[in-house]
Amino acid sequence: MTISKIDAFACFGAKQPVKPFEYTPRPLGPKDITVKISHSGICGSDLHHMDEGWKKEDWPIVPGHEIIGTVLEMGDEVTGFELGQLVGVGVQVWTCFADDCRACTTNSDNLCPKRVATYSAEYADGSKTYGGYATHVRVQSTHVVVIPPTLPRAHAAPLLCAGVTTLTPLRRLNVKAGTSVGVVGIGGLGHLAIQFAAAMGARVTAVSHSLSKKTEALALGASAFVNMADGPGAEKFDVLIMTSSHFSNMDPYLAMLEINGTAVILGAPENRVDFSPFSVIANQCSIMGSLIGSVADMKETLRFAAEHNIKPLIEEFDMKTQINDAIQSVRDGKVRYRAVLKV
Amino acid sequence: MTISKIDAFACFGAKQPVKPFEYTPRPLGPKDITVKISHSGICGSDLHHMDEGWKKEDWPIVPGHEIIGTVLEMGDEVTGFELGQLVGVGVQVWTCFADDCRACTTNSDNLCPKRVATYSAEYADGSKTYGGYATHVRVQSTHVVVIPPTLPRAHAAPLLCAGVTTLTPLRRLNVKAGTSVGVVGIGGLGHLAIQFAAAMGARVTAVSHSLSKKTEALALGASAFVNMADGPGAEKFDVLIMTSSHFSNMDPYLAMLEINGTAVILGAPENRVDFSPFSVIANQCSIMGSLIGSVADMKETLRFAAEHNIKPLIEEFDMKTQINDAIQSVRDGKVRYRAVLKV
Repeated sequence: MTISKIDAFACFGAKQPVKPFEYTPRPLGPKDITVKISHSGICGSDLHHMDEGWKKEDWPIVPGHEIIGTVLEMGDEVTGFELGQLVGVGVQVWTCFADDCRACTTNSDNLCPKRVATYSAEYADGSKTYGGYATHVRVQSTHVVVIPPTLPRAHAAPLLCAGVTTLTPLRRLNVKAGTSVGVVGIGGLGHLAIQFAAAMGARVTAVSHSLSKKTEALALGASAFVNMADGPGAEKFDVLIMTSSHFSNMDPYLAMLEINGTAVILGAPENRVDFSPFSVIANQCSIMGSLIGSVADMKETLRFAAEHNIKPLIEEFDMKTQINDAIQSVRDGKVRYRAVLKV
Repeated sequence: MTISKIDAFACFGAKQPVKPFEYTPRPLGPKDITVKISHSGICGSDLHHMDEGWKKEDWPIVPGHEIIGTVLEMGDEVTGFELGQLVGVGVQVWTCFADDCRACTTNSDNLCPKRVATYSAEYADGSKTYGGYATHVRVQSTHVVVIPPTLPRAHAAPLLCAGVTTLTPLRRLNVKAGTSVGVVGIGGLGHLAIQFAAAMGARVTAVSHSLSKKTEALALGASAFVNMADGPGAEKFDVLIMTSSHFSNMDPYLAMLEINGTAVILGAPENRVDFSPFSVIANQCSIMGSLIGSVADMKETLRFAAEHNIKPLIEEFDMKTQINDAIQSVRDGKVRYRAVLKV
């Protein structure tokens, strides 16, 4: 006898507060796991969806793709998990993993053309996906990851999106001792990028537009701080992680790069971005996009965070009584640095 | 008794034809080599200088940085060369090679902050550099490269700029068997990029804006041809070499990239370039600039071209009698694909 109803919080229209919503999950398939949710992070992308800023939504939607909980039910063919085990679900709940899929065969399953997002998406059979603002979620075990027991579960939640989003490009660019890393924007992504890069041995500079977060940035592992209001500073970076989405001219950032350096765009401005071709040619530098990470990248992020005792700075909110307050705090940019709902 | 006068062709003002010009070379230093020039390529950048399109010029200038000739004189401390040996000089004639120079210690001496260009530049002592439109050139032996004897000397000339410019990013991006490479623009750079990428084992697609060069592109080693006038085609590229300088919107090119692919900007439009941030994020692709190459890259280009019997397609012109015709042909885009002056 598996659960047949899930209590959730759903958004029923653009920019509306979320309200209680009950839905019937798909039947427990042989490879499915039902996760009893204990914590669910709020990601900036949740707000883009609730605001209908990225695409037209099929209301209602149940946001949430930083999901932590325990294994409540398992299909007959599930292996590698046990009941009660601490697990997580991130931003996607299905990818093809086919032998002829370029994305899935190159550890880029997050870019699988058949990828199904954790919410605001549809499975191949047309059924909708509902996310982590809920008591449970039922998904295929291929997209469930085991949470290392030493990670506090509330802090583990943001690692499943913000964490993997920031660690993955640092790994892809082979950041190591001696690498000079700049992190633009000290927020949900940036405060993790600082910690990860420092743990990789890099010399990390926090780049902000005011001095307000300097003390925290240094405490997180940055060894230098640049206030862009005073100009770009003298240090050049091998890797510049751009978490801000408020820019259009790349040139001031490209000018901060070492020769052959790379600026990584993680935050997506809604406007177009421009640059002078000489900014990339004269310095042989690169502009690189990065989108979250693969299932393997999620597992590595959890492993790396546990090994180096890296924890997101979070604010906890009670899901039942404070969920709309929490969403509003994220909307207002008040949360330092990730909001996590506790069921 | 070393030579004390060099006969050259110089440009005396913006967009003027070149005229005979005699100059006194610097005294033969202990590390200097005097090259008796036999061939000198005409590069598109020569025209940018003669048109004063890139920077204000200190007239007269003697263009030419694809220089082939023989060793006529050597300073006392020169080693590794012999009189009469076939050698070349490329786009730079001095870099610091200091232990604390990031560029020079990472095989990027072409980006050395103290780099002195082969012409239209000044040495640290204020003396001007004069290039290859001449009977001789005298430069430090560190920036003279030996030409493999199996390379025809007229064909070797364009390898020293166009060749190293195209092979170097292909090597940096680890192009090999199985890599899918697109080459945008079938010209002086593009016709070499096709040959190099094919010799590296890549599947090469020539991308043009008309069908006019299809037959030649396939003969050079491309296995497919995309006419952008008909749309971008189905093939996605790991590496897209952009040799054209007539574009401003990167999105159609980024859309041709495989996931995690790289678009390399070699041709520099005078306008700014823009893109949608989603074009790089959703595909995790990169935009990379590349600028010619190091001295070691020049040597590798010559070695690779000799090994794979790669020759630029050239049109030869007599320097004394046809130099202005040759320049005009380059200006008109009529040369297929590189013009080489014969002394």
